[in-house]
Amino acid sequence: MDKKLDLFKMNLPEDLKALSEDECIQLAGEIRKLLISTVSKNGGHLASNLGTVELTIAIHRIFESPKDKIVWDVGHQAYSHKILTGRAKDFSSLRTEGGISGFPRPDESEHDAFISGHSSTSISAALGIATAMKLNHNSHHTVAVLGDGAFTGGEIYEGMNNAGKSDTRLVIVLNYNEMSISKNVGAAAKYLSTMRTKEGYMKTKTAVERVLDKTPLVGKPIKEVVRSSKNVVKDMVLHSTMFEDFGFEFVGPIDGHNIEELEQGLSTAKSYNRPTIVLVNTVKGHGYPPAEANSGEYHSIGSFEIKTGNPDVVTTDSFSTVFGKKLLDLGCANKRICAVTAAMKYGTGLQYFAKALPHRFFDVGIAEEHAVTFCAGLASMGMIPVFAVYSTFLQRGYDQLLHDLAIMGIHAVIGVDRAGIVGEDGETHQGIFDIPFLTTIPNVKIYSPSSYAELELCLQKAIEKDDGLCVVRYPRGADKSDSSCIKPTTSFEHTINGSKVLVVTYGRLNNNLTEAAKLLAQKGVVIDTLKLVRIFPITDKIIEIMRSYDKVYFFEECYKYGSIGEKAAANIPNIECTALDGFVKHGSVSSLLDELGLSARKMADKILNGIEK
Amino acid sequence: MDKKLDLFKMNLPEDLKALSEDECIQLAGEIRKLLISTVSKNGGHLASNLGTVELTIAIHRIFESPKDKIVWDVGHQAYSHKILTGRAKDFSSLRTEGGISGFPRPDESEHDAFISGHSSTSISAALGIATAMKLNHNSHHTVAVLGDGAFTGGEIYEGMNNAGKSDTRLVIVLNYNEMSISKNVGAAAKYLSTMRTKEGYMKTKTAVERVLDKTPLVGKPIKEVVRSSKNVVKDMVLHSTMFEDFGFEFVGPIDGHNIEELEQGLSTAKSYNRPTIVLVNTVKGHGYPPAEANSGEYHSIGSFEIKTGNPDVVTTDSFSTVFGKKLLDLGCANKRICAVTAAMKYGTGLQYFAKALPHRFFDVGIAEEHAVTFCAGLASMGMIPVFAVYSTFLQRGYDQLLHDLAIMGIHAVIGVDRAGIVGEDGETHQGIFDIPFLTTIPNVKIYSPSSYAELELCLQKAIEKDDGLCVVRYPRGADKSDSSCIKPTTSFEHTINGSKVLVVTYGRLNNNLTEAAKLLAQKGVVIDTLKLVRIFPITDKIIEIMRSYDKVYFFEECYKYGSIGEKAAANIPNIECTALDGFVKHGSVSSLLDELGLSARKMADKILNGIEK
Repeated sequence: MDKKLDLFKMNLPEDLKALSEDECIQLAGEIRKLLISTVSKNGGHLASNLGTVELTIAIHRIFESPKDKIVWDVGHQAYSHKILTGRAKDFSSLRTEGGISGFPRPDESEHDAFISGHSSTSISAALGIATAMKLNHNSHHTVAVLGDGAFTGGEIYEGMNNAGKSDTRLVIVLNYNEMSISKNVGAAAKYLSTMRTKEGYMKTKTAVERVLDKTPLVGKPIKEVVRSSKNVVKDMVLHSTMFEDFGFEFVGPIDGHNIEELEQGLSTAKSYNRPTIVLVNTVKGHGYPPAEANSGEYHSIGSFEIKTGNPDVVTTDSFSTVFGKKLLDLGCANKRICAVTAAMKYGTGLQYFAKALPHRFFDVGIAEEHAVTFCAGLASMGMIPVFAVYSTFLQRGYDQLLHDLAIMGIHAVIGVDRAGIVGEDGETHQGIFDIPFLTTIPNVKIYSPSSYAELELCLQKAIEKDDGLCVVRYPRGADKSDSSCIKPTTSFEHTINGSKVLVVTYGRLNNNLTEAAKLLAQKGVVIDTLKLVRIFPITDKIIEIMRSYDKVYFFEECYKYGSIGEKAAANIPNIECTALDGFVKHGSVSSLLDELGLSARKMADKILNGIEK
Repeated sequence: MDKKLDLFKMNLPEDLKALSEDECIQLAGEIRKLLISTVSKNGGHLASNLGTVELTIAIHRIFESPKDKIVWDVGHQAYSHKILTGRAKDFSSLRTEGGISGFPRPDESEHDAFISGHSSTSISAALGIATAMKLNHNSHHTVAVLGDGAFTGGEIYEGMNNAGKSDTRLVIVLNYNEMSISKNVGAAAKYLSTMRTKEGYMKTKTAVERVLDKTPLVGKPIKEVVRSSKNVVKDMVLHSTMFEDFGFEFVGPIDGHNIEELEQGLSTAKSYNRPTIVLVNTVKGHGYPPAEANSGEYHSIGSFEIKTGNPDVVTTDSFSTVFGKKLLDLGCANKRICAVTAAMKYGTGLQYFAKALPHRFFDVGIAEEHAVTFCAGLASMGMIPVFAVYSTFLQRGYDQLLHDLAIMGIHAVIGVDRAGIVGEDGETHQGIFDIPFLTTIPNVKIYSPSSYAELELCLQKAIEKDDGLCVVRYPRGADKSDSSCIKPTTSFEHTINGSKVLVVTYGRLNNNLTEAAKLLAQKGVVIDTLKLVRIFPITDKIIEIMRSYDKVYFFEECYKYGSIGEKAAANIPNIECTALDGFVKHGSVSSLLDELGLSARKMADKILNGIEK
């Protein structure tokens, strides 16, 4: 390899600008190798990053980071950006504890302008940055790079509505790759798809003008009529992309794997010095045939074998698939049940329901607000909507849960997937706030099953027996409980061994508690345990049980303020709660739980210390 | 008056269909009289309701409520709908305790399909309703009525993105009245404004086709080229409203005060039996000159004199204006300070800042999500954004507060206006959840000043001394504290009278506590008091003070789960908290506070009861 193109020795991003176009193409190959080899070992987002290699090179050649600011939406497509901004050497530590984050982090590099783990925020953030630059008489540019999936989220329109009219140096690169996390949904996708066609906008616009110019006698008058008519016709014929309606300059569509074309387009956009949208067509997984052929599977992946593309771990059951299969069973028996996802059909295990009952399945795009209000509409007519959504993404539907669902007292079920520590994706994806924010909603009921069997029971109860807003929350991954020693329930399980110490937990931490009890038993310490399943509201019976002990320990993977333990503590004197102190960084689930005091060993240690005092 | 047109004797909405058009026009006059006389006494939303009288009549003549469902966005424009659906007789009780709500309520009438106090939810809710109808083989229609203000909120685009492609009988009436709560903002408003012009869309579309038809030789070929070209040109010339891009049928623009034209347009839309948008132009305040001339003032108004239109109460200072004036002072001294509002410039007192420092003032439309992320962008560049927003509306920015602001640890200030019980607008507008949801955000600091002087101190401290996410919350209306006996502070004020009973509160409830202490003193009962100003996080010092008492009473106008009292209770044994049990209906602030146990008398009674036990 040409030493000049050694990612580990280059001074990046500065050295990029000295490269010829051919060298850039070679460098793209080097970056792809590094992406594939790293993700094959560490897992991560592959397809989207393979799709944006040339785009990232071009951005760093045309713009001058960190003086020009780059905002990624969402941040999981920023791997090449990390490699090209001084982090190639450390890239092998991607997504490992203490290593490079899978998302942009301003505290990791001055080239990371903004954290972005949730979709559709980039235009708003970039407009804030660009506005600050303008107020400070700073003439640099702000670049937002977003995928088409981001266009299904409402905040992007709020951003466009404000950005289009702003007098800022904002360049919005819309990376159209025909795929968001699940298949793209709705009219916005169709609209972009139209613009993607080779007979696309720029060419036809010119063509229409050319045809009119060449048309004898009437061509010119028609063009004049068009030009002079008040806005409407002119808009229709002379500029009519939705983006221009919103006040942006428009460049594109551009071949996102052609560096020359990319640089030309970005230079043009830069030269406008006003809000501009650049439409770039890319292919997800570009350059790695297994990922190109099946970009869905390679969106977010564990480790895999590079040569064959085979994942190391065969997909087995998980809380998500068990949820999805049970929901299908229930849905077959009850025609009122509808399933809703916000672009996470596979992630939430709804593919079974979608296939068997497509007319009652709704993928609404990355649009959690709409998802919740839509559920409220369904529920107001007597349907039973079940919205399956990752804990972290449900945050965006908070107002709708409160204002559209709970206030009407109607019956709907939320399946909160990825609840608790999620792991390698870091603080933007941990599911540690759902309990705090959901418990602020009047009359909500929350279940936190600790096994597959309990998940099925809770889901069935929430759908068939309960009323109002019901939440069933469960972690990412597989059930590791010993099913032989778990008695599935939808309320609680109190194990009495004659101790004066009670240890309380819920969800998968129950496994750690079982283990901790064994560790303590080895040291001659006997504890009673209380596994909560319906964790909120806390019943009088549960309070009574807790009050009957000299000392209560409460362990949970939840942010401390608004936690179940805090609510228990408001009613019980001698309780010691272990919950999370703030945002949780990336790392493996087991090592994070240990660090946070929630492993079996740490639980046992804490109880032992308390007893010894 | 023709007996046939006596609103109090008609059988509504049924009798509407038998009226002639002239009679409808007369009826509109009767409705306007009732609207003006009622709102002049009870206060409420006037301008928007005067603007939708004919539209509401037409909707109820063309559609068949409650079989056809009508969703209002937002619900404050539904007064005529209430009058026309059996509530004319009770309309004089509008917005009074136990009376007719100012917003639609399914528990008030079967004609009210959906609660809607927050903007931009209607298409999502209506799509849910229409989808349920479709699944149940119900052939009725769902009608969503929304103002142009709703088009600045992102959820409307999420709704459009999903509704446009749906096979449902959904009619969306877009009531364009050139005004949302503050002046309409951004590109969407401009776009709609273009469509409003008399040389509008429908006519020009036909005109272009006609011109081409009549053009000898080349006209037809051009039309053919246009028709056969792959989507793009066709879209540009033959249908090119944003709504058609989103997959809707389109009807309009229609004169919203011409009943015949309205009925024609609505009939057409109904006949399509698929998602259709009807653009209706109305004039806010129509039929009442003072409201027409100044629809902003008559958006939401207290009582006023009908003849002159003069409000009964001269506008005086309020927490909002004091906040706004202080922010201007601080902004003049520090160029890093920016002020942001989501369509509530006047409501939040930002008009002073906007006028004096327009380049650092941003009205983003009804777009709280964008507002928060935009603030995060500004803050990431070292600016100090101050977002002034009503408590209830901030709910919509929850994810952004957590994910965009707090996670980055950057400094921003949120001015939470209308915190606590707000009163006559009812459960959708009470500010009782901000503390519960804001305290779930790591590292947030929350101030709840109890007087103007304290508000100024807290705002200054939050901006100049603090870091991270800081919240200053204050109630609607005026400071009623006795400034002579309040020592302004940003931390707390502990009044020691030698009692073993401590009573804690914060914000304006401090006035009631002062009063309660006097009532108790009259009965010979002495209490110590603790007024919190920085209410969260609770410091060790405050815990220590509380712990030093035999008994602590904590009063707050906040939902109980997630309240400050609950957090205190988790650390203090003998505490009794009075907080809110759930949603709070409409009524006057003072009577609601009394009902909820938060008036001076109720506070005193509770303490007295506790002592007597």
